[in-house]
Amino acid sequence: MERLKYGPENADITYIPHNYDEHLFDSGEVVLNYATTGPPDKPAIVLIPGQTESWWGFEKAMGILSDHFQVFAVDLRGQGRSSRTPGRYTFDNFGNDLVKFITFEVGRPVVVSGLSSGGVIAAWLSAYAPPGMIRGAHYEDPPLFACELIPAFGPGIRQATIRTFELFNTYLGDQWRVGDWEGLKKAVREEFPASFLMIFETYYPMGPEPPQNLKEYDPEWAKAFVTGSVGASCDHARMLSKVKCPVLFTHHFSRVDEKTGNLMGASSTQQVDQVEKLVKKAGHPFTRLSFPKMGHSMHDQDPELFVRTLVECEKTLPTEKEIKRKGVFSESG
Amino acid sequence: MERLKYGPENADITYIPHNYDEHLFDSGEVVLNYATTGPPDKPAIVLIPGQTESWWGFEKAMGILSDHFQVFAVDLRGQGRSSRTPGRYTFDNFGNDLVKFITFEVGRPVVVSGLSSGGVIAAWLSAYAPPGMIRGAHYEDPPLFACELIPAFGPGIRQATIRTFELFNTYLGDQWRVGDWEGLKKAVREEFPASFLMIFETYYPMGPEPPQNLKEYDPEWAKAFVTGSVGASCDHARMLSKVKCPVLFTHHFSRVDEKTGNLMGASSTQQVDQVEKLVKKAGHPFTRLSFPKMGHSMHDQDPELFVRTLVECEKTLPTEKEIKRKGVFSESG
Amino acid sequence: MERLKYGPENADITYIPHNYDEHLFDSGEVVLNYATTGPPDKPAIVLIPGQTESWWGFEKAMGILSDHFQVFAVDLRGQGRSSRTPGRYTFDNFGNDLVKFITFEVGRPVVVSGLSSGGVIAAWLSAYAPPGMIRGAHYEDPPLFACELIPAFGPGIRQATIRTFELFNTYLGDQWRVGDWEGLKKAVREEFPASFLMIFETYYPMGPEPPQNLKEYDPEWAKAFVTGSVGASCDHARMLSKVKCPVLFTHHFSRVDEKTGNLMGASSTQQVDQVEKLVKKAGHPFTRLSFPKMGHSMHDQDPELFVRTLVECEKTLPTEKEIKRKGVFSESG
Amino acid sequence: MERLKYGPENADITYIPHNYDEHLFDSGEVVLNYATTGPPDKPAIVLIPGQTESWWGFEKAMGILSDHFQVFAVDLRGQGRSSRTPGRYTFDNFGNDLVKFITFEVGRPVVVSGLSSGGVIAAWLSAYAPPGMIRGAHYEDPPLFACELIPAFGPGIRQATIRTFELFNTYLGDQWRVGDWEGLKKAVREEFPASFLMIFETYYPMGPEPPQNLKEYDPEWAKAFVTGSVGASCDHARMLSKVKCPVLFTHHFSRVDEKTGNLMGASSTQQVDQVEKLVKKAGHPFTRLSFPKMGHSMHDQDPELFVRTLVECEKTLPTEKEIKRKGVFSESG
Repeated sequence: MERLKYGPENADITYIPHNYDEHLFDSGEVVLNYATTGPPDKPAIVLIPGQTESWWGFEKAMGILSDHFQVFAVDLRGQGRSSRTPGRYTFDNFGNDLVKFITFEVGRPVVVSGLSSGGVIAAWLSAYAPPGMIRGAHYEDPPLFACELIPAFGPGIRQATIRTFELFNTYLGDQWRVGDWEGLKKAVREEFPASFLMIFETYYPMGPEPPQNLKEYDPEWAKAFVTGSVGASCDHARMLSKVKCPVLFTHHFSRVDEKTGNLMGASSTQQVDQVEKLVKKAGHPFTRLSFPKMGHSMHDQDPELFVRTLVECEKTLPTEKEIKRKGVFSESG
Repeated sequence: MERLKYGPENADITYIPHNYDEHLFDSGEVVLNYATTGPPDKPAIVLIPGQTESWWGFEKAMGILSDHFQVFAVDLRGQGRSSRTPGRYTFDNFGNDLVKFITFEVGRPVVVSGLSSGGVIAAWLSAYAPPGMIRGAHYEDPPLFACELIPAFGPGIRQATIRTFELFNTYLGDQWRVGDWEGLKKAVREEFPASFLMIFETYYPMGPEPPQNLKEYDPEWAKAFVTGSVGASCDHARMLSKVKCPVLFTHHFSRVDEKTGNLMGASSTQQVDQVEKLVKKAGHPFTRLSFPKMGHSMHDQDPELFVRTLVECEKTLPTEKEIKRKGVFSESG
Repeated sequence: MERLKYGPENADITYIPHNYDEHLFDSGEVVLNYATTGPPDKPAIVLIPGQTESWWGFEKAMGILSDHFQVFAVDLRGQGRSSRTPGRYTFDNFGNDLVKFITFEVGRPVVVSGLSSGGVIAAWLSAYAPPGMIRGAHYEDPPLFACELIPAFGPGIRQATIRTFELFNTYLGDQWRVGDWEGLKKAVREEFPASFLMIFETYYPMGPEPPQNLKEYDPEWAKAFVTGSVGASCDHARMLSKVKCPVLFTHHFSRVDEKTGNLMGASSTQQVDQVEKLVKKAGHPFTRLSFPKMGHSMHDQDPELFVRTLVECEKTLPTEKEIKRKGVFSESG
Repeated sequence: MERLKYGPENADITYIPHNYDEHLFDSGEVVLNYATTGPPDKPAIVLIPGQTESWWGFEKAMGILSDHFQVFAVDLRGQGRSSRTPGRYTFDNFGNDLVKFITFEVGRPVVVSGLSSGGVIAAWLSAYAPPGMIRGAHYEDPPLFACELIPAFGPGIRQATIRTFELFNTYLGDQWRVGDWEGLKKAVREEFPASFLMIFETYYPMGPEPPQNLKEYDPEWAKAFVTGSVGASCDHARMLSKVKCPVLFTHHFSRVDEKTGNLMGASSTQQVDQVEKLVKKAGHPFTRLSFPKMGHSMHDQDPELFVRTLVECEKTLPTEKEIKRKGVFSESG
């Protein structure tokens, strides 16, 4: 069976049409693809996909969100139609791409909401973005601490999803250079216990072709998490101690295996406790909502609840005007 | 205050006399210092000190042990009077030093008993020593998994003793080249919470001079644990799956902090469970004794109990003769 | 002798007055200190110091430059009066700090000129800054390739200045926590060959107190270069292949030892050849000027020549207006 | 096309018969496969293959050597029919495997001769083997310094063969788990310049099936060299400064590219100079023979010359009896 190299260089076999137009933003290093909807007189929100997700993972939510927000859903570098950047997938680079996007494309303070790895990037923005840029941040089931190679607290990536990422990178290869979908399926079936296999298949149906979200994913992302290079200079505890805005943390299904201490899910209760402690110590409101039956992506599984949650949250935030006064989007500045 | 560079090159300020004569074994790369006692017609036992311990940490136990064993207590590379080997402190090197010591100096099958890091080396020998060399292994409160930088199970070194090792290396330096004992004491007092400070002082009394055991310690050991280089090519799970002899595991005081999941002590119950599972799966008897009130070193704190435990254990092992038949010390071979 | 912890937290013992007022810019993560001079109707230039230099390393040049430019001389994170950021000294972070500085503080396209590590950051900006931000870049004697831990071409940092950085970090410590100036001097005198010692003393006079530039330096910078973390996700060859503006490279004194192949100086002729090749392949003018007798810092040693060179170079660049049209400072945008 | 997983677990598709019987030695951790020939009253020689070679790479030479030596040609871990050891391919482990082999299987002092990586292991034995074990060592075109990730001198592996190893590991996978021979050939043809492609094909003919030597090779070896884990705790300069026996270095074809400084061949003249300097400084005879037209493996390309060279060398060594007196094979000991 022929192996196919998916990605922007093979756009015809990689991408499919969506309900929103796509646009490009040139950050200098990368071209970021994004979709936007909703009126510019509503608050701006930037949606950040998780690993192996593209902007259109938010497609269902966007239809509802646009009543309340001007919505920007982005493809990060190495996702969707955005650029591939071998050797350069780090939280600092992901985060700074979005700083430029917000500065030059959105042009006003935003709420950010990111899923999973995207939630870590939302945390990055809440800590490290320029002053007056982030009104508030929603961390949607983020693996804070849990995706660190050597976490300060609780089980790390080796005790959670590392094997999935190892298989992605081994059988698909950086920029899909290996592209062995059959080998990946075989390895997954041989290695994964039944319970985990079932969950895996929910996210990555093992049909004759890779699922659409995997096609749009640069498997070098996986390597960056396996080796820890993604966060080698971005310690989570330090980052969270620098948070500068209100935070909403939605914690979805997760379970710590009693026998091994290993983690099924994005983060343990202990880890969320530590996030809460650090953000509060930094002096900012921290809202923690638990959805113990919710899968990893609330915005996909229950977009109404996702939007309702965000809308409620937004009401509690300082207004755009207040935020502007103190920061880089200051009208007098 | 003048800083002093302790170690073999400054033997006069570093060492003190002991009750047993010391001998030297040349492994080719390193000179290993050791003391021996007990009659050669008794079973042989090799005692492996923990980190920041030298062979004489076993001095009290040796007096009692010598009724039952021919005892060999060694200084590992980087300990006591043995050689310093910058850049080369790895479990594989520690373990292979002892393989040579047993082969050429002891000359017959042995029981091994190692404390803490020395217990990890005892585990190494139980897995990787040549056939017919190890009759049985006592792991005395070893940080299996817990001293891995990225452990397969449970809290790793970052969630346990890493800060102690960081301070040792920062303020004392590789081969004591920094030697700032005052700075170390100051940092420890400023950083460590009271509860931990008390424990720290038990092992490292903070007088005007470093305690004797620290003087004999190459602080580059600490760096090898902080960076993980000590075990970078020695995964614990893999090692334990290769164990080839009966194992006695004594688990002393340990506590997992409920809030953080961090570890006070050498290993968590979950981690010992995994050791047990792997050794049993490898097909070997695994005896697990818990001493929840015992400090880290039973051989120092309660040498009688230590000896009694070892003597009982030894009775259950295959005899030296049986072992010899199958391995490198075979008399016919 | 008492050890002193220099840095922003001990400003009174660390800093001295200068001829230009200092200002602060808040990037969100860090506060950057800078000095500025020259009329706003002249072209803007951003001056980036080298390692162990602060903005006032450009003080002599600024007086002359201000006839031709609006000058901004910055302290990078970990330099001078700017913030210390443990664990976060990377080229990507240094570079993105300056992107924010130029965006929000300068507010128009700039010429950049950076010395040494600052020259690598100038290269970073020439490759990765948003479009329309950098008119042209002067790399002043930069260790391109040569400060990589594992360089694509020529001798790397281990074959050049690594020992100096190792000693800085060992004896001074992250954020000066060790602060053993006496130990550093002793180690330098014992280890360095006479020829190199002489050069070392030129940059770091070994008096009773550390020289002013070292006091203002976070020795964790040194660790970031020794371990390679500074550029772990910033391959130089890839970066140079992305350059987007004209480049001026001034190559000063350097010598490759015939016997060892090791490098005395910032980069070898072969390495500059490769820089030239990559920038030209990227489609941009590359001007290469050799000053084989010039020390590392032309702006300090011969500020007139430095300024003359920059002024000549600036004339060849696209005008600010032309640049603006195509990028983030577009007036219509 | 079906992908095949070569290795000991699939012996029937992996191995072919040879002219010498094969034997197994159990080191405790690994089973080492070897062939032996020649009378036991001749001097013993241990032959160590290079990377992607098995013991039978010496088959032609063995026929001639056996007039002069009792010959032992081994498969290292991860080669030929010897065990695979994921995560544990290090010079220290390779070397210590051979120490055990010589101790327990050969049983007397030996001459060692190793090609390429095997030459580095010969160097390891000459430095770190127990006293009285190695009479002399032949380093056959070894990449000393040149296979270090961060070499002390000259071009390192990134400036030499790294790309070959990266492709081996990417397309074949640890323990052949990817096994994409077609993908490997395609990548090699697309990436390698014609001149290098020709050389590559000499060693690895790109037919419909992988060449025999590759089938017997664990591609995780390649990863160990790409990441540097093979030598992470085995600095070459330190090792060479500890050499304890006479050394013969045969230096074959090599060329340093003038433009890039990159290395074609196993080591540069400068690197051999440094080896010579260090061995001589350690106080041992160093014979250096240059064969500038010889390919990488003299024992394959010109077995007569290889044998003649070894026989001449052997005559200059201390006798087995002299060596025995001072070391672990001492008859009185």
